Amino acid sequence: MKVCLVSRLEFKGRDIISIKDFTREEIDYVLKIAGAIEPVAKSGSDMLQRKTLATLFYEPSTRTRLSFEAAMHKLGGSTIGFAEAEIASVKKGENLADTVRVVESYADVIVLRHPLEGAARLAAEFAKVPIINGGSGAEEHPTQALLDLYTILKEKRRIDGLNIALIGDLRYGRTVHSLAYALSLYDVRLHIVSPESLRMRREVLDVIKEKIEVVQQTEIEEILPEMDILYVTRIQKERFPDLAEYAKVKGAYRIDLETLKNVKKDMIILHPLPRVEEIAAEVDETPHARYFQQVWNGIVMRMALLALVLGAIE
Amino acid sequence: MKVCLVSRLEFKGRDIISIKDFTREEIDYVLKIAGAIEPVAKSGSDMLQRKTLATLFYEPSTRTRLSFEAAMHKLGGSTIGFAEAEIASVKKGENLADTVRVVESYADVIVLRHPLEGAARLAAEFAKVPIINGGSGAEEHPTQALLDLYTILKEKRRIDGLNIALIGDLRYGRTVHSLAYALSLYDVRLHIVSPESLRMRREVLDVIKEKIEVVQQTEIEEILPEMDILYVTRIQKERFPDLAEYAKVKGAYRIDLETLKNVKKDMIILHPLPRVEEIAAEVDETPHARYFQQVWNGIVMRMALLALVLGAIE
Amino acid sequence: MKVCLVSRLEFKGRDIISIKDFTREEIDYVLKIAGAIEPVAKSGSDMLQRKTLATLFYEPSTRTRLSFEAAMHKLGGSTIGFAEAEIASVKKGENLADTVRVVESYADVIVLRHPLEGAARLAAEFAKVPIINGGSGAEEHPTQALLDLYTILKEKRRIDGLNIALIGDLRYGRTVHSLAYALSLYDVRLHIVSPESLRMRREVLDVIKEKIEVVQQTEIEEILPEMDILYVTRIQKERFPDLAEYAKVKGAYRIDLETLKNVKKDMIILHPLPRVEEIAAEVDETPHARYFQQVWNGIVMRMALLALVLGAIE
Repeated sequence: MKVCLVSRLEFKGRDIISIKDFTREEIDYVLKIAGAIEPVAKSGSDMLQRKTLATLFYEPSTRTRLSFEAAMHKLGGSTIGFAEAEIASVKKGENLADTVRVVESYADVIVLRHPLEGAARLAAEFAKVPIINGGSGAEEHPTQALLDLYTILKEKRRIDGLNIALIGDLRYGRTVHSLAYALSLYDVRLHIVSPESLRMRREVLDVIKEKIEVVQQTEIEEILPEMDILYVTRIQKERFPDLAEYAKVKGAYRIDLETLKNVKKDMIILHPLPRVEEIAAEVDETPHARYFQQVWNGIVMRMALLALVLGAIE
Repeated sequence: MKVCLVSRLEFKGRDIISIKDFTREEIDYVLKIAGAIEPVAKSGSDMLQRKTLATLFYEPSTRTRLSFEAAMHKLGGSTIGFAEAEIASVKKGENLADTVRVVESYADVIVLRHPLEGAARLAAEFAKVPIINGGSGAEEHPTQALLDLYTILKEKRRIDGLNIALIGDLRYGRTVHSLAYALSLYDVRLHIVSPESLRMRREVLDVIKEKIEVVQQTEIEEILPEMDILYVTRIQKERFPDLAEYAKVKGAYRIDLETLKNVKKDMIILHPLPRVEEIAAEVDETPHARYFQQVWNGIVMRMALLALVLGAIE
Repeated sequence: MKVCLVSRLEFKGRDIISIKDFTREEIDYVLKIAGAIEPVAKSGSDMLQRKTLATLFYEPSTRTRLSFEAAMHKLGGSTIGFAEAEIASVKKGENLADTVRVVESYADVIVLRHPLEGAARLAAEFAKVPIINGGSGAEEHPTQALLDLYTILKEKRRIDGLNIALIGDLRYGRTVHSLAYALSLYDVRLHIVSPESLRMRREVLDVIKEKIEVVQQTEIEEILPEMDILYVTRIQKERFPDLAEYAKVKGAYRIDLETLKNVKKDMIILHPLPRVEEIAAEVDETPHARYFQQVWNGIVMRMALLALVLGAIE
């Protein structure tokens, strides 16, 4: 559907395509709604009774799909969809524009995951119902960025003024791009830490550098004592052109108990999951670990977004 | 289950296997019920609360599966099922008769999609719950034919007296066989337009020719000005034995703005979807295009059928 | 979650991992609850409204998955999940411990099917919500054993005192191990009948032989007249290291009308399904056949277990 904002805080019928479409005021509003809806995530609700969510996943993503489906169930709605392109009519050569114009008859809102950048925006141009981007290409994953912010706010009670490090694969990881954009709307000091070959893309870096202080580096040790948030990402094997290169950088920024010797007492570690070896299992039991709480916050944030775009919350 | 009709209009417990099992009176009744249930498709209902639909899809078909699932949700019911044979116990060598005798314990109604002709009828012989044929072999797709008729009736307020052209692959397309049978119960003039290699099968043609006037041709231009309905079908690559032949006929009956210069003002274009290149995108915005409305009508028709066979409507 | 029993009959929050974790008193209690909940299986209920079941199936199993999902729907709850590991984040290298710690945010109870022995117990160690083992490795399938017992009790009104034959693949069939353990808690006479190469594993045999009388044999004819229950299992091709060996033993214990000439009038035949050729289709219509009733009893038993571990029944 065409983005059509009556006021900046009107979310009914709105598509959620890119974090870049949000103002800070809008993000703050969404964070507030998530906070208000969190009790409902525990009790359940009939807020979206008789509404249907379609999850169209052209790429496998158990986590994001189940998170949206659980969110919809907790609001009393139902879900339909597919979990991989192979079982879709894609096989028969149908284009995405036709698919969304078909599915909008079946569902009141569509979550789309697609391997191509721009797919969610294209879908939104054709669909009459709201489209939520569940990840497209290597570029955008706006609901992940929003749940990351919600987690930071819940844990720290503020976002402004924090020292935040983004660590690992900053080139291919899609969550980190959306998060960096979102953080650039706040008054944070951002440390971006990666090997040379996995540096954040210039087009992302240029935009956020205009707004906030960004420090780029390849080593992590020296900045650890000042950090409030470590946001660790997986070195994604499947996005690597060269496996030898993958082997080299894997584990370069592994967080373990040794790493945690010189950190602030209330420093927290986030990770979009799944993790592989970037965070040692021994870290899970420390008070720094918050990556499993992030999962819960993801349900809460997605409940908020579904309720907002379907007009169940004003 | 055994077909067991107390009266011709008794649908409770009935299997929906072939359009050939329907009298005109029965089809008219189903069309009337669909019209009556259409408001419920918008508002939702508890009509089938605590009823479960099983979708057993031994062939991928996102569209038909999601349509039935959405219909069931809109009636307040729930759904279970599988979307491809590979993840079914089929892998372990189970036969279809056993599978339906198992699934009838799980569900109140079963929709079956199967690559083999006759599969749905076989299933119905063994199942105690109603079986709805969601497409079997290259032969039958009765619910598609019913939704096509419902679309024609909604758009034209009648079926009798219309000039209807079926265009494209009339040999391998299963929807077109069921539709031709259904139309032969009405007083229509049918034009069947296809390349030589894709002509309608003799056994289908013989039956409908006994009942209505059928004109067979390979060119489309000359009949365009008289037509009330163009029913366009996809040239299905996957059903083609010879790819060179496919390349030759593909696009032979493509509908574009040029094609539409000499048509009746209120002529409408239908298509079972997915389309590939048979209808140019530029046609979508014309008042002739009705193929996306067909999708919505499909939900309505499937709601009517589910409610009927489960006895929620008398 | 950690198994935490307030009393032996407290099931709220309990994991269902192995039949070996159950006392006879506990099994009798579960069988009683299943009997009490059976009417609800027909009428439906809101007992688990706003609760969500996650089905995590790392191995295909249509039957077990649909059975749990149908059970959850009949109790008014909702379901999410995946049906094969390929579409799971497993592909990205995530370990099972992390997956369950993620999914416990999405769901109130998890059913896990996994190719590795011990997987369900590992999952239970990490999850805060109850884990139900839906089959792991070649070893355990506790809910199948419980539904088998429930079927025997319903049909015979007792378990003690019966003559029971387990027939076929006693080495690789996982259901038969769980059932043998369960039966060893009752006063039954067990005949285990298999070819040499498919004999019951020594570690299973040793445990049950300590408790009940077990007769091991390779021929079936001579014991047929005394049996109350024939529990027939599929010779599972996919678990066979050697296909020539498979061809040899397949059909060795096939049950047909000829087999049934010398059996007790009220002898009943059970089978965990899917069957291939172990039971001839002609047997289905005899009063001995109970394997399709077992499927229904499976829903009832899974409803009982879901209601118990979620604390909806005390």
